[in-house]
Amino acid sequence: MSSTPSAHPNRDVRMRGFSSRVTVAEALQWLDAQLAPLPMEKVALDVAGGRVLGETICSRVDVPDFRRAMMDGFALHAEDTTGASPYNRLSLAVIGQSLPACPFPGSVARGQAVRIMTGAPVPDGADAVLPAEKVEEAADNIFAQSEVSPQKNVGAIGEDIRRGTTVLDKGRRLRPQDVGVMSSIGVGQACVVRQPRVRIVVTGNEILPAGSAARDYRIADANGPMLAALVTRDGGLPFDEGIIADDPQAILQALRCDADVVLVSGGSSVGQEDHVPTLLADHGELAVHGIAMRPSSPTGMGRLDQRLVFLLPGNPVSCLCAYDFFAGRAVRALGGRNKTWPYHRRTARLHRKLVSAIGRTDYARVTLRDEQVEPLAISGASVLSSTTRADGFVIIPADSEGYPEGAEVEVFLYE
Amino acid sequence: MSSTPSAHPNRDVRMRGFSSRVTVAEALQWLDAQLAPLPMEKVALDVAGGRVLGETICSRVDVPDFRRAMMDGFALHAEDTTGASPYNRLSLAVIGQSLPACPFPGSVARGQAVRIMTGAPVPDGADAVLPAEKVEEAADNIFAQSEVSPQKNVGAIGEDIRRGTTVLDKGRRLRPQDVGVMSSIGVGQACVVRQPRVRIVVTGNEILPAGSAARDYRIADANGPMLAALVTRDGGLPFDEGIIADDPQAILQALRCDADVVLVSGGSSVGQEDHVPTLLADHGELAVHGIAMRPSSPTGMGRLDQRLVFLLPGNPVSCLCAYDFFAGRAVRALGGRNKTWPYHRRTARLHRKLVSAIGRTDYARVTLRDEQVEPLAISGASVLSSTTRADGFVIIPADSEGYPEGAEVEVFLYE
Repeated sequence: MSSTPSAHPNRDVRMRGFSSRVTVAEALQWLDAQLAPLPMEKVALDVAGGRVLGETICSRVDVPDFRRAMMDGFALHAEDTTGASPYNRLSLAVIGQSLPACPFPGSVARGQAVRIMTGAPVPDGADAVLPAEKVEEAADNIFAQSEVSPQKNVGAIGEDIRRGTTVLDKGRRLRPQDVGVMSSIGVGQACVVRQPRVRIVVTGNEILPAGSAARDYRIADANGPMLAALVTRDGGLPFDEGIIADDPQAILQALRCDADVVLVSGGSSVGQEDHVPTLLADHGELAVHGIAMRPSSPTGMGRLDQRLVFLLPGNPVSCLCAYDFFAGRAVRALGGRNKTWPYHRRTARLHRKLVSAIGRTDYARVTLRDEQVEPLAISGASVLSSTTRADGFVIIPADSEGYPEGAEVEVFLYE
Repeated sequence: MSSTPSAHPNRDVRMRGFSSRVTVAEALQWLDAQLAPLPMEKVALDVAGGRVLGETICSRVDVPDFRRAMMDGFALHAEDTTGASPYNRLSLAVIGQSLPACPFPGSVARGQAVRIMTGAPVPDGADAVLPAEKVEEAADNIFAQSEVSPQKNVGAIGEDIRRGTTVLDKGRRLRPQDVGVMSSIGVGQACVVRQPRVRIVVTGNEILPAGSAARDYRIADANGPMLAALVTRDGGLPFDEGIIADDPQAILQALRCDADVVLVSGGSSVGQEDHVPTLLADHGELAVHGIAMRPSSPTGMGRLDQRLVFLLPGNPVSCLCAYDFFAGRAVRALGGRNKTWPYHRRTARLHRKLVSAIGRTDYARVTLRDEQVEPLAISGASVLSSTTRADGFVIIPADSEGYPEGAEVEVFLYE
């Protein structure tokens, strides 16, 4: 009965379960102790949006550093407009004009006015700008038809930013307007946390390059492009160099690359083709292997020299979940971002009960319809399409057996 | 009294107000009629995350297209395990093994088992996989110590995706897992909406390049890098070619560039140096100029040949606000994204009243502390630092005079 030859007669087929699994909390404890932002680098302002500021920005200048007109109109002494109205037009002599970067060179005396444009320096003597529409113009003079109070329509020195003010704090993720403010105080380059370089290593003899047509019991790599998109979302710089064969030497070489983080997809478990845990244990540190969670229990974490290495299960949903729980946290933290989940949350009620087990953390895909949370009825970690049909997921922590129908739960939204 | 020479004695200084302003709703009506997604382009899957799908994706294949093992263990006839337990171990002959991409070539008869790894094809005859940990192994046979039901741990053909299923809808912004799904059904490149090319034209003789130290009554450009970050956030591809002088020919040449959208910062109003509206009216279409809003009332919109042109006020807060209301909407829509505000929202109560005027739309920067909305007390549109101190903004629509203290308002969050 055993005469049919095995496909791999010479291989030593080992199969063993995980001897023990750590909890998600224990795994995160190890991970968080490894995470500190990478060194800084300088980048041009026009690519600094979204990056994380590596230093506190304090302004060395006043913005503006001159009194500027906030309206098109006439710079004058506010007192000269006292009583002005359409029925009591007051005449002032126009003695020149002030344009942006082209100031009026003299001083404005009582009874005088200088034509001025928005952004132009307010000349000495003048203490207000009367808007153009409140004025009737004649040849060499104007008739003020409205009062204006002192300082009106004059931007004071330091009005936007006062010299010595802390403008932006270290660790802030730069908004578009932050970049504008840095520019306006003469900071020409942003000192930001370096983006982590993330090598994606997809292993497995059964894996064909991304987007291939499946054939010969082999399947196209779904995890490589998914991980690239996840890493990009989290501010890392992903790179990969094609599928790596289930060969220890090839995998070890791939692990020893110029990266801050290595994500290995596949070969992470305890089966015979699962070389990566052994490689990491032999050549570096396999700190965590096997986590009490569903899916993603075969996840591993460790270090090889300076690199953080994540062993992600080959099953796509497990891969996504393990990335989000652990690897993504590292990518975000190394890049200086907030390490917590990057998903927005919404609270809603369960339409059906959601069952888990004490001691295990569950990642349950759900849809959200009419503010009702519907768990997706799916069998396994291999059904990636469950995560495209889902609107998000619910985490059931280790100390919970799940939630009854009608319970209020927090949904992490995928979009 | 008028003997002091003007700085620009030969210029014809024109000053006029806006003859009339359109409402924000009217401006949006014109704009929305211009907006359709750009043509499609194909991109590699690993850069497709976040892009907008230009076609509906329907699977031409089953995923998986073979019955695959979902556990490491033994493929067998489920019936052969009936009654198996640690106290009633049932012997089965091991006739070979099935590895990923390396199937067992024969068929499994009653009383037989094939060692199998996760992801490997389940051999003919077998209808279940008994997990390795439920088995005691001997030389050429195993002892089943547990029952397994038919189909257990066997991933059915099409379990993840069934041939003919619509997997992703046109117009969807691709999530990381979507890219994985596309890869797994053999779609090697994503057909996505082209990203709009956005030329940023910063004008103004008083403007120094971004990050310059202010000098001679000139100020560093804040809007260029801010707009670049905004465009990038909204999925566009920004480019610029330095500050453009307040010279009609130079500006016209900058407008006539290889771009889908042109953003002009500065020179948008009705003052003497505001060439852009006239240029657009003379050489293209100036559809909107002057909008009943605060800030950003001097905003303009139009077309030059195929390009959408936005005249954004030079004051940085006005520029940001006008971008978010109008230009950003166009960038998002041309790239296929949702054209509405890209900010998350939170509802909270006003700590102080917020005053506006009927007929005018206001964009009020606020902070959010302890779920209380605090309007920022700031004078003008030039105070860009108000948008870095703010947590977000509140929109007061044209039909409202504002909100009293304690009113519940919706805050658009900057982060």
